[in-house]
Amino acid sequence: MLSNGVYVLTARCAERYGAATVSWVSQVSFEPPLVAAAVRRDSNVFRCFAGSGRAALHVVGEQQRDIARRFFFPTRAADGAINGEPFAEGATGTPVLPSLPAHVECRVEQIIDTGGDHALVILKVVEAECREQRARPLTIAQTPWEYGG
Amino acid sequence: MLSNGVYVLTARCAERYGAATVSWVSQVSFEPPLVAAAVRRDSNVFRCFAGSGRAALHVVGEQQRDIARRFFFPTRAADGAINGEPFAEGATGTPVLPSLPAHVECRVEQIIDTGGDHALVILKVVEAECREQRARPLTIAQTPWEYGG
Repeated sequence: MLSNGVYVLTARCAERYGAATVSWVSQVSFEPPLVAAAVRRDSNVFRCFAGSGRAALHVVGEQQRDIARRFFFPTRAADGAINGEPFAEGATGTPVLPSLPAHVECRVEQIIDTGGDHALVILKVVEAECREQRARPLTIAQTPWEYGG
Repeated sequence: MLSNGVYVLTARCAERYGAATVSWVSQVSFEPPLVAAAVRRDSNVFRCFAGSGRAALHVVGEQQRDIARRFFFPTRAADGAINGEPFAEGATGTPVLPSLPAHVECRVEQIIDTGGDHALVILKVVEAECREQRARPLTIAQTPWEYGG
């Protein structure tokens, strides 16, 4: 009965790309602006942001369930697309997905071992872009999923 | 554009009670079941769970905005009620609020200094009770609030 959104987390380390749909995300500070995300350590995206210290967190729009679904699968970057979704290079060098309505680019501040099956990464927002002010974010409650990765 | 629920976090340390509405909450592990919550260090509830190592996190139902609002104010426990809301003692000794549809009682596993304006507490679920299976949880998006404390 906890309420969660649906997000796509991306990262790049040298020539390796990682992207995954995640739902265990929350802001944790106003000043500085910090966000926490629980991420599986065996995921590609984890290895990428742990290596580069950079990640981008994208909001998925209410009508974009299909895009979120693409990032349930292992990352495959080719021809300017990650898992078939076009990407650009953000200000921090992190891949950003312009088809999603908003994203923040972040610096990895801490990776916390909680003793659980996900690591908790604390991200400091260094860039933010909102392409669609009116977009309504997709939530887990609106999907058939109980957990978004 | 991050999606958040609305929760009431309670704790007790000896004869001192703390209760606050919080919204920066997410599950962070399946096994063991862990939840993270960002809480202001100067709050009563922070001091109580930091002292006792126990806290209870309650889901607020869709129609219970007024109950959430009560816990925006400083904690006052008197006559079996906290801020006017009746409470019982949970299995861990933590005050639980039976008017809310579900709660988990937790052990404090870690309190993390993120460098931000809230501390991040990692809670391990040790007891759970769902009184209303059909309750729909209140989310911040359904309220006039941008942030629930």
